Amino acid sequence: MSGYYALPLELLAEEFAKLPGIGMKTAHRLAYSIISRPEEEVQTFADALLAAKRDIHFCPCCQNLTDLELCPICADDQRDHSTICVVESPKDVTALERTGEYRGVYHVLHGLISPIDGITPNKLRMRELLARINQGDVSEVIMATNPTVEGDATAMYLAQLLEPLGLTVTRLAFGLPVGGTLEYADEVTLFKALENRTPLYKS
Amino acid sequence: MSGYYALPLELLAEEFAKLPGIGMKTAHRLAYSIISRPEEEVQTFADALLAAKRDIHFCPCCQNLTDLELCPICADDQRDHSTICVVESPKDVTALERTGEYRGVYHVLHGLISPIDGITPNKLRMRELLARINQGDVSEVIMATNPTVEGDATAMYLAQLLEPLGLTVTRLAFGLPVGGTLEYADEVTLFKALENRTPLYKS
Repeated sequence: MSGYYALPLELLAEEFAKLPGIGMKTAHRLAYSIISRPEEEVQTFADALLAAKRDIHFCPCCQNLTDLELCPICADDQRDHSTICVVESPKDVTALERTGEYRGVYHVLHGLISPIDGITPNKLRMRELLARINQGDVSEVIMATNPTVEGDATAMYLAQLLEPLGLTVTRLAFGLPVGGTLEYADEVTLFKALENRTPLYKS
Repeated sequence: MSGYYALPLELLAEEFAKLPGIGMKTAHRLAYSIISRPEEEVQTFADALLAAKRDIHFCPCCQNLTDLELCPICADDQRDHSTICVVESPKDVTALERTGEYRGVYHVLHGLISPIDGITPNKLRMRELLARINQGDVSEVIMATNPTVEGDATAMYLAQLLEPLGLTVTRLAFGLPVGGTLEYADEVTLFKALENRTPLYKS
């Protein structure tokens, strides 16, 4: 292909194609769109790329991505620092914050245990979690990993690790998604919904 | 959303979201992927962006995108400069070059006539085409715009414009796509295929 495209355009398309989920055809389309934009806008894009890479680092406390010394959630005195919600990735923090209900803090593992992909517990940010628990007065750790094989395995592994420390370890509830229908729920979800049924009133 | 994401990450995601076909969710995924890449790679990406915008310009002859003074096709003495193939965009040049069959040169209009979108003939690179034809000894102009309302209208408009100049003006053939089936061909395509039938042998 490259003979027909101008070299700088081809090189840019190759860069776009390195992004996850972007194929060569889309990459060429994106590269063309750059050419037709004003030079200032392209400069802004390039600056944003470099700034994000340069300024973003892990929060030394919760390991979430931040450009500040301590992330806004860890730095917030109004939040309950005795409850730590353990998640797989920064995206999960965003999802939970969007509910507006959780007032505790987080801990981002940056992955899940997956021996098949070579991700063993020591490659995740578990040491930092243990250090936090050993330091402060944490009363509850909520396992908020995905309800997948890896998410469950990671939650179980961590729960066992934390058992001797004498704190409450909980797991997110499984059940029917709100707005979902019984008809389309899979068997495991339905079984979990039945198993974890909650009383509407007590006689 | 922006409260939960670190600012530089949010700014980068907004830049990605300005690209065609990239929504806010994909933009965040792409922004995250940048953070986890080595700094040199991100620098290469930023450089490629700026280089493409800075070095790519229109070929003064065929209006295709190039980083050279004259694009490689226009600069090629081996090609037939008396046959000009008129296309909508640089992507169409790539598509035609991929066939390996065409030995003439091109002219890129950078759009099609579309009054509804405010694209009038004077916004396309038609003046440059007329100048080329007036200058050199062009014998044939092939209208290779897409078989759409806009593509047909542009081809017809240009054909009328070129009529007094006394050269051959042709249009790409319409018919069944190779590997296609009669069953799934639309009526207009099938009608065109019937109308433009070619003899297998002559009695």
